[in-house]
Amino acid sequence: MSQGYTVAVVGATGAVGETLLQILEERKFPVRTLRLFASERSAGRRLRFLEEEVPVEPLTADGFRGVEFALFSAGAGRSKDFAPAAARAGAVVIDNSSAFRMDPEVPLVVPEINPEAALRHKGIIANPNCTTIVMVMALKPLHDHTRVKRVVANSYQAVSGAGAKAIAELERQVMAWVKGEPITAEGFPHQIAFNVLPQVDVFLENGYTREEMKLINETRKILGDERIQVSPTAVRVPVFRAHSVAVNVETERPVPVATARDLFAAFPGLKVLDDPSRLEYPMPIIAAGTDDCYVGRIRQDLSRENALNFWVVGDQLRKGAALNAIQIAELLIR
Amino acid sequence: MSQGYTVAVVGATGAVGETLLQILEERKFPVRTLRLFASERSAGRRLRFLEEEVPVEPLTADGFRGVEFALFSAGAGRSKDFAPAAARAGAVVIDNSSAFRMDPEVPLVVPEINPEAALRHKGIIANPNCTTIVMVMALKPLHDHTRVKRVVANSYQAVSGAGAKAIAELERQVMAWVKGEPITAEGFPHQIAFNVLPQVDVFLENGYTREEMKLINETRKILGDERIQVSPTAVRVPVFRAHSVAVNVETERPVPVATARDLFAAFPGLKVLDDPSRLEYPMPIIAAGTDDCYVGRIRQDLSRENALNFWVVGDQLRKGAALNAIQIAELLIR
Repeated sequence: MSQGYTVAVVGATGAVGETLLQILEERKFPVRTLRLFASERSAGRRLRFLEEEVPVEPLTADGFRGVEFALFSAGAGRSKDFAPAAARAGAVVIDNSSAFRMDPEVPLVVPEINPEAALRHKGIIANPNCTTIVMVMALKPLHDHTRVKRVVANSYQAVSGAGAKAIAELERQVMAWVKGEPITAEGFPHQIAFNVLPQVDVFLENGYTREEMKLINETRKILGDERIQVSPTAVRVPVFRAHSVAVNVETERPVPVATARDLFAAFPGLKVLDDPSRLEYPMPIIAAGTDDCYVGRIRQDLSRENALNFWVVGDQLRKGAALNAIQIAELLIR
Repeated sequence: MSQGYTVAVVGATGAVGETLLQILEERKFPVRTLRLFASERSAGRRLRFLEEEVPVEPLTADGFRGVEFALFSAGAGRSKDFAPAAARAGAVVIDNSSAFRMDPEVPLVVPEINPEAALRHKGIIANPNCTTIVMVMALKPLHDHTRVKRVVANSYQAVSGAGAKAIAELERQVMAWVKGEPITAEGFPHQIAFNVLPQVDVFLENGYTREEMKLINETRKILGDERIQVSPTAVRVPVFRAHSVAVNVETERPVPVATARDLFAAFPGLKVLDDPSRLEYPMPIIAAGTDDCYVGRIRQDLSRENALNFWVVGDQLRKGAALNAIQIAELLIR
């Protein structure tokens, strides 16, 4: 680690934190020194990175001296409390929480979509919501071709979007089911095993969840077009990993299915899996653990000439979180 | 069983067949004689009904003499082959398959919606697709209030919609996961445990599945309005029982959320479960084993003035199949 950058991972023991370490290794990100931060409870643990055991330190405001990239994934509260201090200490903060996403001073970046925004940062760059990233990856090539006017988006979100504890909760509920024991909910508002929850994140006054409002607001900010309308329903499903979104999109002009397929296929980070004759379409078990977003079930909306339906799936811990954050850091060092 | 009707259940050993027997008992349907039919493989078995053991007979064209109600749920092929013979023998066939649903001579009936259609039958009445029933139960009160123009429908469908074997397949895959063994698909095109499949039924030339086309065509026929546009995506989820549908509906005139809630609450067979402050909304685990359809997450579409979003869940073996069929028979004997 002699050449390179001092990188801090805040929330190192969480589901995204763990994925950040994997991807820093995989992509050979030039790490000279790795600093790991987590809550008091996890401090003192050691995590393996490359050939070394790296200690987990407790998070403090003055702990960021010398840090060049601070990858935050410890919840919006921690980000609000500590990201400004990290930025003042000279780090570029890439924040996976919702804390700064809608701050007009903070770029909200998907590197394939709006890399130029990252370069205008003032110390903090926000990593978008995981479901939003997966969806906008497919909207962007359509939007560049002929403006996206309105999207009806329905998500099928994996439990790992809610963190490592949520994965354990689904496992625990499935084991209770196997043993014929009562299934109890802890982190989730209701049973998630063999059930679906039409609630992701908390409810707001207007009847939408915070997750749904992220799909509306973040889509506009990332695509740089406040006119885009999004009508979202965010639903949790008993899947461990990878979010799916069923997208109905109305465009300025009609887009033939063949054109949409070509646009998707040409877009970096997007793979077309769309051969019904071979029962081929994107699924969570295909996307899990991979870097691309997968799009399929591309078809003309039979109810409206200038509309298409499609289905997009991405690993929300990788492209939806950790990978996207590291791609932002890579943009800055290029 | 001295007073009443001779009732035949065709496909008695399937998931819907089993539910038909339960509901005939529960509702004290006036059964004088019960005849059970199934494939050769199941013939000879005996099934319990009330206090008796009823033998399962092999299905033959001349087996329907004296039968007054023949409740078919053995697949479209069996219905095509045997339902006309049953009708010729004098039975009223209530057919749960897709065989006759779009036949202009055959009424397609949801008793709360178009009971009058049932009375015009010519021997065969079709029971609609399970997902369609759950959705139209919520569309009907809106359509009566101000015409439904367009629906974007995304389903979250339980495995039991694909029959008893599909339930066993999900169980088997979950047990394989528990034991760390490889998960293999048999009836479903791909793994369903901890996955979602954007495919229900087979693909058609236009890129839609047959299930999706049912949602378009059957909705129009049941609501008696060929102008209604439906843009569907049908998805299988690892849930044992009860289908959920996320509905985005555009109406002729705007419908305030409070009005929609009142319309839903007043409609027979529909229950409103919609209190976000108490984390209350419909879920498969609430609907499973019950007769009502449940609607919640009722909210203004922020992207369009004359549109609403809502979420409706119903037990597809009961209201989506067996219960609806028996309600049709009850209509006829009233």
